[in-house]
Amino acid sequence: MMGGKIPVFEKIVDGAIRGILRDCQPRTLFVPAEYMLSLGGKRLRPLLTLMAADLFGKNAEEVLDAALAVEIFHNFSLVHDDLMDDADLRRGYPTVHKKWSDNSAILSGDALVIEAYKYIAKTPVSVLPVILDLFSTTAMEICQGQQYDMDFEQRFDVTEEEYIEMIRLKTAVLIGCALKIGAIIAGAPAADTDSLYKFGINIGLAFQLKDDLLDVYGDRETFGKKIGGDILCNKKTFLLIRSLKNANGVQREELYRWLTATDYNPDAKIRFVKNLYDELNLKFVVENLIEKYYLASLDCLSSVNVPDTRKRDLITLSENLMYREK
Amino acid sequence: MMGGKIPVFEKIVDGAIRGILRDCQPRTLFVPAEYMLSLGGKRLRPLLTLMAADLFGKNAEEVLDAALAVEIFHNFSLVHDDLMDDADLRRGYPTVHKKWSDNSAILSGDALVIEAYKYIAKTPVSVLPVILDLFSTTAMEICQGQQYDMDFEQRFDVTEEEYIEMIRLKTAVLIGCALKIGAIIAGAPAADTDSLYKFGINIGLAFQLKDDLLDVYGDRETFGKKIGGDILCNKKTFLLIRSLKNANGVQREELYRWLTATDYNPDAKIRFVKNLYDELNLKFVVENLIEKYYLASLDCLSSVNVPDTRKRDLITLSENLMYREK
Repeated sequence: MMGGKIPVFEKIVDGAIRGILRDCQPRTLFVPAEYMLSLGGKRLRPLLTLMAADLFGKNAEEVLDAALAVEIFHNFSLVHDDLMDDADLRRGYPTVHKKWSDNSAILSGDALVIEAYKYIAKTPVSVLPVILDLFSTTAMEICQGQQYDMDFEQRFDVTEEEYIEMIRLKTAVLIGCALKIGAIIAGAPAADTDSLYKFGINIGLAFQLKDDLLDVYGDRETFGKKIGGDILCNKKTFLLIRSLKNANGVQREELYRWLTATDYNPDAKIRFVKNLYDELNLKFVVENLIEKYYLASLDCLSSVNVPDTRKRDLITLSENLMYREK
Repeated sequence: MMGGKIPVFEKIVDGAIRGILRDCQPRTLFVPAEYMLSLGGKRLRPLLTLMAADLFGKNAEEVLDAALAVEIFHNFSLVHDDLMDDADLRRGYPTVHKKWSDNSAILSGDALVIEAYKYIAKTPVSVLPVILDLFSTTAMEICQGQQYDMDFEQRFDVTEEEYIEMIRLKTAVLIGCALKIGAIIAGAPAADTDSLYKFGINIGLAFQLKDDLLDVYGDRETFGKKIGGDILCNKKTFLLIRSLKNANGVQREELYRWLTATDYNPDAKIRFVKNLYDELNLKFVVENLIEKYYLASLDCLSSVNVPDTRKRDLITLSENLMYREK
């Protein structure tokens, strides 16, 4: 399914991640960090860095450290987000704070963010300042996105625009950053690195909307997380925001009752909300929105000044992200 | 009391800190971060960066960003440490997680560490890689120190050597780093930046031992923290480690009873342990150890190749740290 260089790049990334933080002391600090890094996942972000560099003829090895920095940072944010959201599972395995402790998740997360900066600091000095600036700006945006996400849980008046801006910060900017870093180190012109960044933003938005769908309509085993997790913690996903807007009087009243209930049957809540989404035809609505961002992403990619044949891997990867089941 | 340029440097640091993260959104993320930065404290670390640069004739303004990076990083570590230790007070004010929430402390701490990297990234590019490397190595050591500190709380066989290594990591390396960064940016020779680093390590060890003493013998109002906090959470300070070693049979038995008790009167525990320290003459022992590290620090400073007159401010500051009451 994954053609071209993707399998090769995946192998390079997987091999390199296995050596990170190995043998560092004390083990109480670094075993949880290594555990998180070892859980795998799609390795989407480092792959994108390698693919972006490849677009401009740069070898994977020359951007590998930067690619790892992005992946390590991503794992840092997952460890802390899982703790803040009190999530039980990540990629089908217990989260760090469940397997060890809250303090373990805080401190091993801190170690991961510092390790990410150690890797990004290996960037060739000629582009180091611009890469550092992009990396830190993105890192801060991810924190801002997480804060908006948590703030939204207390609110019932979140707009669709606010939601899209939140997932842009929380998810999309790191996808854009991963691509742009690879292109900058490869020496791409500014116009192209900007187009690739925008390609990443659109892919990232589509990716997160797909994630929201999978949280409701996915298969627990395949998805690796509990289905309905977003529903139980009243996450203001696009689905819920649109429901609050489009529900009729009776539906809205019952929805509010579930959202404000403190003592309830979790499965019954998930069943009710999912049923409401179905009645409002929201799976179809969100699939259309995903398609919109996907097409916008292809537009951005088409304006990158390299032959179309070079872009095939990126398009294959994007398609797979849109039509994935996990 | 503080002569020379110290008051000028303090003013520069205080003024600059006031602008950090102002107007950043969302406020729910950045108000706790600004609160922590505004609590003040001694501003010891950024002051040391300015003073180290001044030793070699570099203006304060030219190392100010790096100095702020060190102070912002220090505040990040305090926010997360206070959460992990569940401390109530910091500098006489409620800690971030007590004033807001655990999640607030996690995420605003994360924002602070990223902000610290934004400031260190402003370093002139000619020395940026070496400064970044020192900064990240130090940052990771601080995490390692905090982990050892937490691990030690579960152990009764911590040695004095292990304790000194722990406070070297948790406290002393950032003092050394603050000095070395200032000296490197000022263009000092490697031998001198190394001597200054070692000066900082010795000052840092003395500083932490003094902190341990103040936790037992300080005045609550002046110190800004609850007296006896270390005792209540069984922190393996030098005082406790030496007690476990030097106590006679009866004393040791009673000490173990207090250390393993789950239901007890906090004031009575503090009273017992403090009384034991007095019986074992440990205040005097630790004061001598502080003196030893202080003298070692002066040795390191004397080998820095600049005229003695230039070192006066650093010596004044160090003396004040040794004989402080807060």
